[in-house]
Amino acid sequence: MAQVQYAIGIDDVRAAAQRLAGVAHHTPVARVHALDERAGAQLFLKCENLQRVGAFKFRGAYNALAQLSDEERARGVLAFSSGNHAQGVALAARLLGIAATIVMPTDAPASKLAATRGYGAKVVLYDRYEVNREDVARKVQGETGATLIPPYDDPRIMAGQGTAALELLEEVPDLDVLFVPVGGGGLLSGCTVAATALRPGIRVYGVETEAGNDWWQSWQRNERVEIGVPKTIADGMQTTSPGRLTFPLVRALAAGIVLVSEDEVRQAMRLLLERGKLLAEPSGATSLAAALFRKAEIAGKKVGIVISGGNVDMERLATLIA
Amino acid sequence: MAQVQYAIGIDDVRAAAQRLAGVAHHTPVARVHALDERAGAQLFLKCENLQRVGAFKFRGAYNALAQLSDEERARGVLAFSSGNHAQGVALAARLLGIAATIVMPTDAPASKLAATRGYGAKVVLYDRYEVNREDVARKVQGETGATLIPPYDDPRIMAGQGTAALELLEEVPDLDVLFVPVGGGGLLSGCTVAATALRPGIRVYGVETEAGNDWWQSWQRNERVEIGVPKTIADGMQTTSPGRLTFPLVRALAAGIVLVSEDEVRQAMRLLLERGKLLAEPSGATSLAAALFRKAEIAGKKVGIVISGGNVDMERLATLIA
Repeated sequence: MAQVQYAIGIDDVRAAAQRLAGVAHHTPVARVHALDERAGAQLFLKCENLQRVGAFKFRGAYNALAQLSDEERARGVLAFSSGNHAQGVALAARLLGIAATIVMPTDAPASKLAATRGYGAKVVLYDRYEVNREDVARKVQGETGATLIPPYDDPRIMAGQGTAALELLEEVPDLDVLFVPVGGGGLLSGCTVAATALRPGIRVYGVETEAGNDWWQSWQRNERVEIGVPKTIADGMQTTSPGRLTFPLVRALAAGIVLVSEDEVRQAMRLLLERGKLLAEPSGATSLAAALFRKAEIAGKKVGIVISGGNVDMERLATLIA
Repeated sequence: MAQVQYAIGIDDVRAAAQRLAGVAHHTPVARVHALDERAGAQLFLKCENLQRVGAFKFRGAYNALAQLSDEERARGVLAFSSGNHAQGVALAARLLGIAATIVMPTDAPASKLAATRGYGAKVVLYDRYEVNREDVARKVQGETGATLIPPYDDPRIMAGQGTAALELLEEVPDLDVLFVPVGGGGLLSGCTVAATALRPGIRVYGVETEAGNDWWQSWQRNERVEIGVPKTIADGMQTTSPGRLTFPLVRALAAGIVLVSEDEVRQAMRLLLERGKLLAEPSGATSLAAALFRKAEIAGKKVGIVISGGNVDMERLATLIA
């Protein structure tokens, strides 16, 4: 059998973990009995909502920036992001002494805009229903010579995000199933590599909302499908197509893609808050929703859940839980 | 100098810790940089909102019930409580195979009523503006012969609650200040004993809301003052007087009582949720409010904060953060 080469392997994830040691938080794995009862399984919640910047995105961003040459660092970095990637790049850049410009949509949550500026990054806004964000980014790049840090389709980003699953599997080595939220696929691809390397036979599922089912469609057709910008409460999942590098890896090594409804996401957020006292953003709670509403065979099993982020405006949260 | 004898000493807290090992959660100590910046100090948040039943109350309840004789266990236990003590006793009783009856006010939060029943306890309701809860409890007690488990004024309860500070000081031995929410004083007295034993010179402050300032008044007059049932968002702090056993201990060993406003509590809850992704109930966030609004000398210091509980109805939370 021929050896297929994917964008990253477990060695890349391990190397990323070395770079992140002492910089990223080794986030806790939470156990909430009330959620176990509802799911009919033992859930191990990897709390990336407690990661620096409130989401896993810091892992990949720092792993990418830490590998830039001195010359590249001097020219600065550039990112386009609807939120958490922006904050991840902004904080990583500050820690490494690199200038950062972030291109953000005008309708990004106010908390994410403020936090990104708070980390010292320059923010450039654009209307994402009118303009292509890559075009905006390329324009800024042409002016400054800054290095573009892609949100997911980059081996350094993928490997960095995979360290979340590496930590989880090191702490709970006998997981049967792992649910991971999927937007562009950086987190899912990295976690799939790490989990399947440490635990051959583990079933890794990507989770997205029904409204933004580009991964689910792509999985069925076995090729990358493009959809319109989805209208979903999961604002971290508004990508329109799986990544060029992330998709083939996930399609080969993961067990599948499952879909959750907007209401299931809302219920998962609410239960996590009410019973677990932990705040997840909608995208970050999709994985928990998949377990609570049993979107795969999990009865009696040990199930890893990546709670990928916790950045929600309080006004918005109030309407989501009311 | 004569040795003054208080209701409990550090040995009682250590013995309680032995009983609780493997039963209560050893709760995490959270660090949230954004809160440090606001407080101008290093804050170490002891997350008792992540304790079993969502509050520190499980510690004292289990410590008390575990010391009952076989005969006492056979007759069952009884508690009166506005909420978290009820859940603590109910769960401890279930774990030890003891029947529990809980006397609760009719206006207790719905989530606390449901949770108490969910742990298998029998709930008896009474109107706390009309009837004295001790009378109701004594009536039930006369019928069943059950042992009354007081909410705070009991050495076993005080020692159990003190294990929260014992764990915190073992993990962060060089704290300068400790803020502890105070209702009846079970948590404050136990934590004061533990903290001052492990760290002589530490300044321990009890925190209550301005609306329910019975401890603050009692501290000033150096005697226990009785106030009317306070109307405050901190529903875990609706006691009307310090405890007979808890007050003298706290008055002798703690550094003082500080007051926070209703709005300061709301802001602390909101910031903890927004920046720390952790849910505290209003009473549980008073200690954080004391630090954020610098109610004592904390500039540049290492400050322990007991986040005492996280049980809030979601509907109520929505109005608190909106």
